Amino acid sequence: MLAEKSLLMIPGPTPIPPRVAAAMTRPMINHRGEAFSALLEEVTTKLKKVFRTEQPVYIFPGAGSGGWEAALVNTLNPGDAVLSVSIGDFGDRWCRVAAKLGFHVERLRFEPGQAADPDRIAEKLAEDRERRIKAVLIQHNETSTGVTNDVRAIARAVRSHGALLMVDSVSGLGALPLEMDAWDLDVVLTGAQKALMCPPGLSIIAFSERARAAAEQSTMPRFYWDLKAAESSRQKWQTPYTPAISLLYALREALQMLEEETLEGAWERHRLLGAMCRAGVQAMGLRLLAEDERTASNSVTAVVSPVDPKRLRKVARERFGVQLAGGQGELADRIFRIGHLGYVAPGDVLQALAATEMALAVCGYDVQVGKAVAAAQEVWLRWDPGQGR
Amino acid sequence: MLAEKSLLMIPGPTPIPPRVAAAMTRPMINHRGEAFSALLEEVTTKLKKVFRTEQPVYIFPGAGSGGWEAALVNTLNPGDAVLSVSIGDFGDRWCRVAAKLGFHVERLRFEPGQAADPDRIAEKLAEDRERRIKAVLIQHNETSTGVTNDVRAIARAVRSHGALLMVDSVSGLGALPLEMDAWDLDVVLTGAQKALMCPPGLSIIAFSERARAAAEQSTMPRFYWDLKAAESSRQKWQTPYTPAISLLYALREALQMLEEETLEGAWERHRLLGAMCRAGVQAMGLRLLAEDERTASNSVTAVVSPVDPKRLRKVARERFGVQLAGGQGELADRIFRIGHLGYVAPGDVLQALAATEMALAVCGYDVQVGKAVAAAQEVWLRWDPGQGR
Repeated sequence: MLAEKSLLMIPGPTPIPPRVAAAMTRPMINHRGEAFSALLEEVTTKLKKVFRTEQPVYIFPGAGSGGWEAALVNTLNPGDAVLSVSIGDFGDRWCRVAAKLGFHVERLRFEPGQAADPDRIAEKLAEDRERRIKAVLIQHNETSTGVTNDVRAIARAVRSHGALLMVDSVSGLGALPLEMDAWDLDVVLTGAQKALMCPPGLSIIAFSERARAAAEQSTMPRFYWDLKAAESSRQKWQTPYTPAISLLYALREALQMLEEETLEGAWERHRLLGAMCRAGVQAMGLRLLAEDERTASNSVTAVVSPVDPKRLRKVARERFGVQLAGGQGELADRIFRIGHLGYVAPGDVLQALAATEMALAVCGYDVQVGKAVAAAQEVWLRWDPGQGR
Repeated sequence: MLAEKSLLMIPGPTPIPPRVAAAMTRPMINHRGEAFSALLEEVTTKLKKVFRTEQPVYIFPGAGSGGWEAALVNTLNPGDAVLSVSIGDFGDRWCRVAAKLGFHVERLRFEPGQAADPDRIAEKLAEDRERRIKAVLIQHNETSTGVTNDVRAIARAVRSHGALLMVDSVSGLGALPLEMDAWDLDVVLTGAQKALMCPPGLSIIAFSERARAAAEQSTMPRFYWDLKAAESSRQKWQTPYTPAISLLYALREALQMLEEETLEGAWERHRLLGAMCRAGVQAMGLRLLAEDERTASNSVTAVVSPVDPKRLRKVARERFGVQLAGGQGELADRIFRIGHLGYVAPGDVLQALAATEMALAVCGYDVQVGKAVAAAQEVWLRWDPGQGR
């Protein structure tokens, strides 16, 4: 049934708004010309508002996870120790990246479904009396478990130690509140293919003054992700090598849309999407993976599956036209995930819940058809903008 | 005068065919799903035909120059020596990248306008009796000088030594003949934004069996450009991190176009474009930077400018609607370049020559208007397909 018009409810890549898709078809330009410089300056200026920072923001052609490497190789030195705080698969991956690049990694790991405890981080750092730990790595929003960390509290815990705080906000930025400057974060990285409503292929990263000072001293060998080269080009609104021009057209249009909605409006919308999704899931008698609903993510909801999640997703996709995400790593057979970030409206969540409910019924789970959507409707109907803040 | 319909005659990014631009607007898909795997397999299979190889080809989200890093960090070990053979700015840049990444770089540099002499390379390698040099780095086509190297002869010179031969074919592949397997090349890298008619943002690289064996032994720290991770994902037709899906849609369409034209047909077309461009340039009494016309590039023509090249380009762009490229580095004040690769038809070369001629007249250079186009027309009219082979 019109398979192409499948509703993509995974936590990235996310659906592309028509005007963003259309923007990519603009004619190619010379990346050494004035038109490109104007484009880069405009996009960067708009991005700073989304990062809530006065610091420079850099855009590399690449996957969001390239930012993991960029954060580490620019600010640290060979053999430096870092503290990896992981609450799920993406935290574990960043940890492995740091180890692969030769850093000494100390780990603080929380169970899937838990948020990171700022006090535990403070304790761990307090043990490091010799200040060997140079950076703390953390996810703003752990895409694999649907849990959002309290980055503000973590930043306070890290600040007294002096390590750089590096925040992966790939599935957070633009959907969930984040204040780079006010919270005093050192590195914030994201991709364009999540809340920023663009196709994948841009790695976006901001460095604080402290992080840039560290970069001046860093002796890590690097080329592609080199901040110094990026900064020296940025001063002329150029890039060290050919930029992904069509994706920058897309990003400009998407950021324009975000400005029209307002960033606070987008945060508010994601609060509503998250609340609706959780209400629907719970109305089906299902359990969230997030242990504490207060830390449940408003960009992706992870649900403990009462049936084989692979079969559930297949039925939802093939019969009811909605694409759900599976679990990652050890969670592959335990959960499914509903992504609700980026170009997603409340009606999409209703449709996703309806499809999930029907797919559960097909898989033999006892549901009363209609309950999930009704519960989400109740949330939407009674939504008082600002209540979730 | 309709500034948007400016003719982009620079050696990349190159104009995007309408059907390639349209392909990017296809709906976003799950990069962990079957539709994506089918897309990746199809694109990779088509790419192998363009690389003329049975070896696996990998596509990374990133700039073409990311391939420089990928080639080095996967196949070498810390402190290894490499021989950088440079005939221009891109050769010099790859040389600097190797040094930045900590390799010991020996240099063999030719004057701008010269091609690399395979005998000099053989001599240099013969001096290396201890086989310290592990790789030879070379451009297939030096974009900054408009000179094409004889990669086949260079490959013969390198083979007896045993070093890996790494070929940057960013402005060559798809436009100029290259036979990865028949010429026994170890690494061939390119970008999508040149002869492959796509927007920038894809770094494409193929490794020979020998290069992949070297990668098994390599201890260089790496994450983003890691071949092993790419290969292990590729076996499931997946990628280690989110791929640039919309650009892969574009690449599939562009490769489909190349198949329709046939690769040999595209090579033939670029031979005609190059011959027309050179005839027009010489009819204006201008000198090619390429010292020997037999090594002049069929994808970009570098011309010694009789007037200030910046002013010339500005007039050509603003008054006559054609974008020419400037010179790079030390050539910035000496030359201008006409790009004729990718989605370029012979008529575009006529238009570029006409604009160049008129801009020269505006800049006070003595030209007889019409001569350049007439000379190029003569070449086109009398073109005997296959004559340039």
